[in-house]
Amino acid sequence: MHQLAPKRSRKAGLPPGTPVHLGERKSETTRLTLLHYSEQRAVEQEFKTVSECLALRDTPGISWINITGLHEVERLAQFGSAFGLHPLVLEDILNTDQRPKLEDYGEYLYIVIKRLGNNTPTNEISTEQISLILGHNLVISFQESDSGVFSAIKERILDNRGRIRRLGADYLVYALMDTVVDNYFAIFEKLGERIESLQETIITRPTPASLRTLHALKRELLFLRKSVWPLREVVSGLQRGDSTLVHKDTWFYFRDVYDHTIHVIDTIETYRDMLASMMDIYLSSLSIRLNEVMKVLTVIATIFMPLTFIAGLYGMNFHNMPELGWRWGYPLVLLVMAAIAGGMLVFFRRKKWF
Amino acid sequence: MHQLAPKRSRKAGLPPGTPVHLGERKSETTRLTLLHYSEQRAVEQEFKTVSECLALRDTPGISWINITGLHEVERLAQFGSAFGLHPLVLEDILNTDQRPKLEDYGEYLYIVIKRLGNNTPTNEISTEQISLILGHNLVISFQESDSGVFSAIKERILDNRGRIRRLGADYLVYALMDTVVDNYFAIFEKLGERIESLQETIITRPTPASLRTLHALKRELLFLRKSVWPLREVVSGLQRGDSTLVHKDTWFYFRDVYDHTIHVIDTIETYRDMLASMMDIYLSSLSIRLNEVMKVLTVIATIFMPLTFIAGLYGMNFHNMPELGWRWGYPLVLLVMAAIAGGMLVFFRRKKWF
Amino acid sequence: MHQLAPKRSRKAGLPPGTPVHLGERKSETTRLTLLHYSEQRAVEQEFKTVSECLALRDTPGISWINITGLHEVERLAQFGSAFGLHPLVLEDILNTDQRPKLEDYGEYLYIVIKRLGNNTPTNEISTEQISLILGHNLVISFQESDSGVFSAIKERILDNRGRIRRLGADYLVYALMDTVVDNYFAIFEKLGERIESLQETIITRPTPASLRTLHALKRELLFLRKSVWPLREVVSGLQRGDSTLVHKDTWFYFRDVYDHTIHVIDTIETYRDMLASMMDIYLSSLSIRLNEVMKVLTVIATIFMPLTFIAGLYGMNFHNMPELGWRWGYPLVLLVMAAIAGGMLVFFRRKKWF
Amino acid sequence: MHQLAPKRSRKAGLPPGTPVHLGERKSETTRLTLLHYSEQRAVEQEFKTVSECLALRDTPGISWINITGLHEVERLAQFGSAFGLHPLVLEDILNTDQRPKLEDYGEYLYIVIKRLGNNTPTNEISTEQISLILGHNLVISFQESDSGVFSAIKERILDNRGRIRRLGADYLVYALMDTVVDNYFAIFEKLGERIESLQETIITRPTPASLRTLHALKRELLFLRKSVWPLREVVSGLQRGDSTLVHKDTWFYFRDVYDHTIHVIDTIETYRDMLASMMDIYLSSLSIRLNEVMKVLTVIATIFMPLTFIAGLYGMNFHNMPELGWRWGYPLVLLVMAAIAGGMLVFFRRKKWF
Amino acid sequence: MHQLAPKRSRKAGLPPGTPVHLGERKSETTRLTLLHYSEQRAVEQEFKTVSECLALRDTPGISWINITGLHEVERLAQFGSAFGLHPLVLEDILNTDQRPKLEDYGEYLYIVIKRLGNNTPTNEISTEQISLILGHNLVISFQESDSGVFSAIKERILDNRGRIRRLGADYLVYALMDTVVDNYFAIFEKLGERIESLQETIITRPTPASLRTLHALKRELLFLRKSVWPLREVVSGLQRGDSTLVHKDTWFYFRDVYDHTIHVIDTIETYRDMLASMMDIYLSSLSIRLNEVMKVLTVIATIFMPLTFIAGLYGMNFHNMPELGWRWGYPLVLLVMAAIAGGMLVFFRRKKWF
Repeated sequence: MHQLAPKRSRKAGLPPGTPVHLGERKSETTRLTLLHYSEQRAVEQEFKTVSECLALRDTPGISWINITGLHEVERLAQFGSAFGLHPLVLEDILNTDQRPKLEDYGEYLYIVIKRLGNNTPTNEISTEQISLILGHNLVISFQESDSGVFSAIKERILDNRGRIRRLGADYLVYALMDTVVDNYFAIFEKLGERIESLQETIITRPTPASLRTLHALKRELLFLRKSVWPLREVVSGLQRGDSTLVHKDTWFYFRDVYDHTIHVIDTIETYRDMLASMMDIYLSSLSIRLNEVMKVLTVIATIFMPLTFIAGLYGMNFHNMPELGWRWGYPLVLLVMAAIAGGMLVFFRRKKWF
Repeated sequence: MHQLAPKRSRKAGLPPGTPVHLGERKSETTRLTLLHYSEQRAVEQEFKTVSECLALRDTPGISWINITGLHEVERLAQFGSAFGLHPLVLEDILNTDQRPKLEDYGEYLYIVIKRLGNNTPTNEISTEQISLILGHNLVISFQESDSGVFSAIKERILDNRGRIRRLGADYLVYALMDTVVDNYFAIFEKLGERIESLQETIITRPTPASLRTLHALKRELLFLRKSVWPLREVVSGLQRGDSTLVHKDTWFYFRDVYDHTIHVIDTIETYRDMLASMMDIYLSSLSIRLNEVMKVLTVIATIFMPLTFIAGLYGMNFHNMPELGWRWGYPLVLLVMAAIAGGMLVFFRRKKWF
Repeated sequence: MHQLAPKRSRKAGLPPGTPVHLGERKSETTRLTLLHYSEQRAVEQEFKTVSECLALRDTPGISWINITGLHEVERLAQFGSAFGLHPLVLEDILNTDQRPKLEDYGEYLYIVIKRLGNNTPTNEISTEQISLILGHNLVISFQESDSGVFSAIKERILDNRGRIRRLGADYLVYALMDTVVDNYFAIFEKLGERIESLQETIITRPTPASLRTLHALKRELLFLRKSVWPLREVVSGLQRGDSTLVHKDTWFYFRDVYDHTIHVIDTIETYRDMLASMMDIYLSSLSIRLNEVMKVLTVIATIFMPLTFIAGLYGMNFHNMPELGWRWGYPLVLLVMAAIAGGMLVFFRRKKWF
Repeated sequence: MHQLAPKRSRKAGLPPGTPVHLGERKSETTRLTLLHYSEQRAVEQEFKTVSECLALRDTPGISWINITGLHEVERLAQFGSAFGLHPLVLEDILNTDQRPKLEDYGEYLYIVIKRLGNNTPTNEISTEQISLILGHNLVISFQESDSGVFSAIKERILDNRGRIRRLGADYLVYALMDTVVDNYFAIFEKLGERIESLQETIITRPTPASLRTLHALKRELLFLRKSVWPLREVVSGLQRGDSTLVHKDTWFYFRDVYDHTIHVIDTIETYRDMLASMMDIYLSSLSIRLNEVMKVLTVIATIFMPLTFIAGLYGMNFHNMPELGWRWGYPLVLLVMAAIAGGMLVFFRRKKWF
Repeated sequence: MHQLAPKRSRKAGLPPGTPVHLGERKSETTRLTLLHYSEQRAVEQEFKTVSECLALRDTPGISWINITGLHEVERLAQFGSAFGLHPLVLEDILNTDQRPKLEDYGEYLYIVIKRLGNNTPTNEISTEQISLILGHNLVISFQESDSGVFSAIKERILDNRGRIRRLGADYLVYALMDTVVDNYFAIFEKLGERIESLQETIITRPTPASLRTLHALKRELLFLRKSVWPLREVVSGLQRGDSTLVHKDTWFYFRDVYDHTIHVIDTIETYRDMLASMMDIYLSSLSIRLNEVMKVLTVIATIFMPLTFIAGLYGMNFHNMPELGWRWGYPLVLLVMAAIAGGMLVFFRRKKWF
């Protein structure tokens, strides 16, 4: 289950800007890959030391450095200072419970977004932090694990498909963010199916288990909301074009991502409304059931109580009870009883109790 | 039933701007019609190839190109590039789960709106995406199917009725949007009648079926809301006159559409309040019923339990029970029983239980 | 009961700006009255043709043209074009389900407000649309019926009471609006009394009928809200002084109307809170009652079930039941029974069940 | 109880700006006191006619005119015109159901605030309107009754304590408002105690009476909210320094009042949340009680129904019932009954029903 | 338990700016410590009189004066005037129920924040007010008690670790605030654990005690919210850089604190949603239980009432009841009874009642 509050107590007392990896360790090793491309050519290369990386950087073209695995703190710290990242940025990259955000550090933009994934066995939605640095002709992406979410983009660059090699570093950032946001739709489709199926259950045969599922879904949505809502601000900031690092031509593209984000947020809100409404249905179904149970009880009691009373009446041992001696006394009493039972049944039928 | 989340997973992994038709296929063929008009004359013509279309475009006057059916992706892509539409615009035209929006691409405005329709047998409200391009002396409209919603405008142009031939392309866009929004009123009138009739049912004789109807209406409203709310922003953007493509004289007209949109949104909010209030009534009616059932049970039990006890008392087999030998014992007991039953009835009547 | 959605389907398919009267026909004839006044003199005159009216208009002073009854569409259309009203304005004047609004057409302002009335027999609140045109030295007011709401102002002008003859056309518009808004207070006073009386009922002796009344009041409030809320924007727009037709001296007066409007809106919100709180009380009173009913049942059952069992015990026909032969067996059993009943009563009394 | 809607119908039909006293008559006579002070000296004087007052006004220094009792409309109207007050201001001063507001009339500011008081016997909170006029070296305060709320300030001026005599008329207005707002804290402390005590009651032993108290508190809070919320805007307006009548040095002071106002508003919102949460607790406590009652009933019925049945079984009069003749039949049956009763008790104990 | 409303009545009637200590006395003595540092050196010194302090202040470098314990009003007043603090600032420092706020007094900024602490035995969260003054090369911090929250920073300065000695007074303020906000995470982690454990309880075995815990948590959250929400505004104000006392380089740092604050606020809102959802679960679990209780009762009653009736029937004393004489009468009746009981059980099993 998703943890509610960020666990940052490990960091308490350290000076600000101290790089500490907060979060699960999601990959074995830290890998650094450089993809250097211009309109003419594109090369990909994995490297071990930061100096290799810096060398390549000076050739003209766009450099995309992709880093997966965040636990080798030392190496990342070294990397960060080589590229002139602010200590606070490095701290935030390593601390994987950030909210999505956009921070302008003048020479570069720092962007945090969340990748959503589907843990197939438990059906639960997992989250992973992706940090992006957009500098001049430079994009650095930090991922918690090597999920392969960006491999399609990598191939598009290497195979020179689409517009990507002709456009700048800002377009690459767009492409990365677009991939992540497009991925949300699949996640929410599945979530929607789970909600639909729960709704079906709650309307037809609600059980306490459906209440627990409802509560779990609510909680999951609460959690997703925290990952998606702030994204709106992030993309809106990129689209407004406050920074010179984002060119005018790319604004349209970020506007498109903005549009998708709004779409996802809309979906979240719709789901929340649905779940709230399902809670109402669940509660009223409990009331309806109680009503039915009570009607059964009342019908039974109302029919048998008078009959039992009559039977008890003629079970009394008074010496002087003339009816007991009548020839047709017994059949007569049976007849009266049948009449009472029948009358009651007609009465309840009229009241539509069964 | 309306699908909750947009189904876009088919598109995952494709580069942005790839035209893919997402949505139901609602018409057999893709038809392109050109209506060319000036104050003096108006001609309508259907055409097959894009080049025919481009030829006509250069003659002075306003060109309205109407396209119905969106599944012939190739042809539309060709058309789009001939008219200089941005790849993202084309992608959005084909992807029919867009939210209503207005995007300014400098040379043209891209507008998405939703047409609502009433599926008469199931009484459900359907939705169709209409994309509008407003360029210089050019309007292009994309519809999912040939619903005939714009035929009245077409005739107004051909017959030269009203102001339409004297005014510009922006007025045509206004006329198209106004037609779509005016159509909402009819849809909401019918929806209002369904809500009124449900309310009648819930107040007089609520059943679990009314709860299901209530839930379905809530859901439908949630869905309509998503189609109408963003329209407010769209029309507000057109009315503010940020783009030079919309002339000052047309502002008044868009303000009128804005007014209608607000009206529709108001109605949606009123409906939502009504449905919420009806849920409360439904729940309280369940409580009232339970109260009534319990009162019946309690009255019956309270009357017959003491009587049955007395009968049981004189059914005991003690040898020494003097009352059993009394002459008037039996009638006396009957009298006592009648007194108890009568007293109980008076008591409950006073408490207004029946 | 108030209709929820505007009924505009009669207008579907007509070109925008076509004058059609939408709404009930509330008066027999359409009457046009001109009140022409300056600081020195004031004359009132009813007229038939528009040309008479135009003639008078050119004399110096302020002209107030008051029109009651909106169904003679032809005549009003003629009038509108003589005074240079935009076709959309005329359409809105005739379409009586407008929201309150202020529209600036440069040469004149178009204002829509709602007059509230009390239908005394049914106690329901009715609504009537009043359209005001504020031009240069010209005020035109359109009313659905001749309700006499403006007669006090008319007399004030003719008798030269107060400041009205010394001030301009904008002050007249203020006076008209102020009269309408002041009238709201009386309406809401009555509504408040109805709410107070319902609250009294719900706290002391709630019935299903009170639930229906509650629901009807909620609905009425929803409806009034739609008539009053947008007024805030209207008056705020006039007070800000965006238009040169409203002079600086009149701003203070419109600020006063603004203040009253806020006051009315406050009252509506308070009422809504009251009604929501009353719903809670109603529901909890149902629970309280159920509790009481169940306590009666439980007390009765708990006392008589053990007693009946004991009676049944000694009604068994075993040959060998020594107690039956005891001399004091019967009185002893009666004693035991009395002890049980008494014990139960003490127990329930301690639990404060009755 | 507080009236919900303002009662202004007495004023309907009068021209705007007509001074009419709306509200309770809270004091016997209208008293006018002038306190004239400069850094060197301070004199207090009660006066009867407006001309006396005007005479004094021209001497250098600050004049604070305090007026208590608002029913002598004639005299106040005369006073108002002597000091150049706008007719609308005079109307609002006399109409004591104004919302707190700040109006800038150029030469003077008009401020309305509400003094809260505690009616000790009924524990209800009363309200009184205080109007302040801040002119050049002039402060006029209008109170409904002579509550003595400003006497501490008066003494501070006469005794030359604190900064008050060195600072301007705006500081005096600050001091007056600060006194009124500081007074709110005491009122809300008492209200908080009432809420705490109610909460105690509702958690431990809820009764229908607590529901009524809860509702009354909710209503009282609704009413206080209307008196305090708009104050925020008022003080914020003064602190922003839009008017030249408020000097820069006094801004800090008004910021302090602003801070207090926010504090009070926070408290109101906290109380509202508390009361809403208490309603939930009340409702759930009703459910818990019902559950307990039903458990008692069920335990009793489940134990005695089988026992009574068995007793009834051996009370049947069949000739051929061998058990009846058994020697140990009766004790055996008693044993079986005890076993059943014991088994049931164990079962319910395990289910933790008692 | 946290007090709801601020207790300020002790101050009523005093002139504004009078220093009075409002709040608990949390420390024995008032201690003043000066930490004077520049890039080269740092000295710490405790001092008794204000003059000592002023002397040191003129040497170049940054002075951080830390004051713990606020009850020695006289001494603090003296201190305040020596450092040119506005009387209102001093008043607010001593009055420990301030909301977090930022006030710009030109020469210095006045900041109020709240330190949260965990009272380990009762698990309740305590709060302490920290006031910060940021002047030119001067920081003054006022704490209610000597909690040691800032000792890590003190050591960092004395040991010259991190950037702190190289940066200005604004960085010191940042460091102080960051420490306080970082501390929130630990507090909210613990609170989150308490909420999780309550949720576990409510889902599996809800008791009235869980309701009380839920209510207490809600209240605690309400209280924390008041301490944290306004902080957002405070940090946002510092980050915007309105004051020249905060340098551009420090903006990034304050933006980081802002980010943390938003994070904490998010967590609070998530907790609130969780608690609201848990209330729903609690209420529905009550309904479920009632349903179960009623089913038990109904099953028992429905089985035994008919049986008891039949037994009663053959317990009647009519002389002429042929069945009584039958040889197999008794076993037959037993068989019928078993059939009825079995049928009922099958019926309820099918309805899934047990």
